Amino acid sequence: MGLTHAEAVAADAADPLRPLRDRFHLPDGLIYLDGNSLGALPRSAVAHQQEVVRRQWGDSLIRSWNVHGWIDAPQRLGAKIAPLIGAKPNEVIVSDSTSVNLFKLLAAAARLSERPSLLSESGNFHTDLHIASGVADLMRMRLDIVPRDKVEERIGSDTNLLLLTHVHYKTGDRFDMEAVTRRARSSGAFTVWDLSHSVGAVPLHLNAAGAELAVGCGYKYLNGGPGAPAFLYIAEHLQAQLVSPLRGWMGHAEPFAFTDNYVPARGIDRFLAGTPPILGLAALESGVETFEGVSLERLWAKSIALFDVIHGLVEARCPQLECITPRGPEQRGSHISFRHPNAFELCQALIADRVIGDFRAPDVIRFGLTPLYLGFEDLWHAVDRMAAILDSGRWREPRFAVRGKVT
Amino acid sequence: MGLTHAEAVAADAADPLRPLRDRFHLPDGLIYLDGNSLGALPRSAVAHQQEVVRRQWGDSLIRSWNVHGWIDAPQRLGAKIAPLIGAKPNEVIVSDSTSVNLFKLLAAAARLSERPSLLSESGNFHTDLHIASGVADLMRMRLDIVPRDKVEERIGSDTNLLLLTHVHYKTGDRFDMEAVTRRARSSGAFTVWDLSHSVGAVPLHLNAAGAELAVGCGYKYLNGGPGAPAFLYIAEHLQAQLVSPLRGWMGHAEPFAFTDNYVPARGIDRFLAGTPPILGLAALESGVETFEGVSLERLWAKSIALFDVIHGLVEARCPQLECITPRGPEQRGSHISFRHPNAFELCQALIADRVIGDFRAPDVIRFGLTPLYLGFEDLWHAVDRMAAILDSGRWREPRFAVRGKVT
Repeated sequence: MGLTHAEAVAADAADPLRPLRDRFHLPDGLIYLDGNSLGALPRSAVAHQQEVVRRQWGDSLIRSWNVHGWIDAPQRLGAKIAPLIGAKPNEVIVSDSTSVNLFKLLAAAARLSERPSLLSESGNFHTDLHIASGVADLMRMRLDIVPRDKVEERIGSDTNLLLLTHVHYKTGDRFDMEAVTRRARSSGAFTVWDLSHSVGAVPLHLNAAGAELAVGCGYKYLNGGPGAPAFLYIAEHLQAQLVSPLRGWMGHAEPFAFTDNYVPARGIDRFLAGTPPILGLAALESGVETFEGVSLERLWAKSIALFDVIHGLVEARCPQLECITPRGPEQRGSHISFRHPNAFELCQALIADRVIGDFRAPDVIRFGLTPLYLGFEDLWHAVDRMAAILDSGRWREPRFAVRGKVT
Repeated sequence: MGLTHAEAVAADAADPLRPLRDRFHLPDGLIYLDGNSLGALPRSAVAHQQEVVRRQWGDSLIRSWNVHGWIDAPQRLGAKIAPLIGAKPNEVIVSDSTSVNLFKLLAAAARLSERPSLLSESGNFHTDLHIASGVADLMRMRLDIVPRDKVEERIGSDTNLLLLTHVHYKTGDRFDMEAVTRRARSSGAFTVWDLSHSVGAVPLHLNAAGAELAVGCGYKYLNGGPGAPAFLYIAEHLQAQLVSPLRGWMGHAEPFAFTDNYVPARGIDRFLAGTPPILGLAALESGVETFEGVSLERLWAKSIALFDVIHGLVEARCPQLECITPRGPEQRGSHISFRHPNAFELCQALIADRVIGDFRAPDVIRFGLTPLYLGFEDLWHAVDRMAAILDSGRWREPRFAVRGKVT
């Protein structure tokens, strides 16, 4: 029957990471299982944002580019994200959105060879596939989209780039980054990894895995706020060979020399484009700081415990739900997804009961397990409410079938 | 000898736009002549940013995409900017940076013909030229950069796109948008206008001028905050013919259907890319609201008066400075620039005296005239301090020669 309520309470009491929860503002009575879509608000972000708006923008005005370090924020934040992904500080930079960063890396890296194929997975997060289709179109390449289980065998002498999402946004399936990267490199192809559903949750060791190119999202597990700027990673040895297709002034060797000719900056800075979005960067800085003093390995151990608890509870109390996320920690990320023909209505009924999960078309309900601020008792209550909704059939109320724009 | 101090004070007292100044937080004793680089903080932005951070992000979390209208922010803000540029509400959208938006429009519009040349002006703001060079490179086109006075005669049967900045960032020179657009169209070329130094200052009538493609900056005269998102404009009749090279999910016809295939959204929405940057959009919304209830024609009339006052004062009291901005209102924007061999040091000495202007390499000092919050007495004091610095030679102090990263 899964963990009892008393056992869940005891597990929270025994959890050495429990104090980290206080780094976040969590609304009373709400169980938030969507931190993999929008991370919760770090308490420090409130004051930091006020400081940036009132004192830096309001009082120091244009001088803040220097005196408050605005101009270096993309690099400074990149260096703070680097240890979370197993990279060197000069291999990560924060800029633009995940979509735009993907475009930059794909278009730049595609020029490393004459090979015609850009290869990705069917059912990959769609922005990745759409961005790739735009790159293929512009660069007269072919976009090959194949089922997940055919990806590795499809890598061949015509493969220019392999674009994969490390942890699948829906199922939670995780690729073996090291093995896939090696397989691609042995065929002469580069791999671009989308870390959006892994960074801040799954321990990442990009350097050790031989990964050379990656992008990732700032507003999920990194807690950077809605539409936070994204990051990109380029292994040091590749940086000099790549030129961004988006040659904005911030990526110029001398942004303030105002010259007609484009000369890319040294290193990863050349992948900056326009003026850095300071308010978004400030919030992301607060988000990244919520990881201070805790290792990803400990967070991951807690994530595994959370997964086992919710998995066991759902198995025992919600047999109507089919888990589509792999059980083994090495095969998955930090969310758990279930299939149900009325996943949409179920998700809405849960929200009405103050349990926030995510519906993913056509029939998946997804729960993010964020070890920084989620407790075992939270999971117990979430499953308890879900069991009540399923057993009573209350999800059939017409109000739960109303479709909004974002779900 | 220019306006006297008493006359300046009287001019402020008689200025019907004077109360608009109260919409901004302006540090005591500071004279801010750089609102064309970073607009001042709107007072309303402080509370609005807190509301978005604490209540929307903190309390409503992921639900804010619907309940607080996050998902529609790019369109809602575009519709608010539209009247400032003489466009229809469905012709403007807010997204990404000016650089990235330029890339989208250039790469999309270049496909409207097979012509090989992308034409722009030498000395144009460099990010425009660099972005254009990236587009030319990707699309196997030729980037032709010619002196300003040769641009019009260079337009020919090989011209695919003309890329021009409406008001020059350094000199303030303004193109005749209607005449140039007509000249290009009569040769079969499209024009992409960069409105960064005009929007929110110079009255713009894009529809009436026959302009079809434009981008603009959110953090200058629009007061949207450091690194604010930018906007793009596409005339309604062109929207269906253009497809963004950056095919992010927010530009998809059904962003939440999660399909492998890319189908562009109808209308200008297809030029969205990644997840909207909500904190930046919120600040920009406060910025755009500072224009509420005042016509651009009245603001422009005040800008002309401000220009005449500072021009007259500098002519009388700072003969060491050579004005490089055209005198006639139709030939220029809302800033005034002067040449001086030691413009850098002069600018630094002025900052030390709490007058904030802008240095532009190699020898220009630039002052933004922002009619929403600048007064005549401000200009009198600014020139008074500048005259004292020039007459005493105080700019020669070694501390004023120290180069920072951003000036």
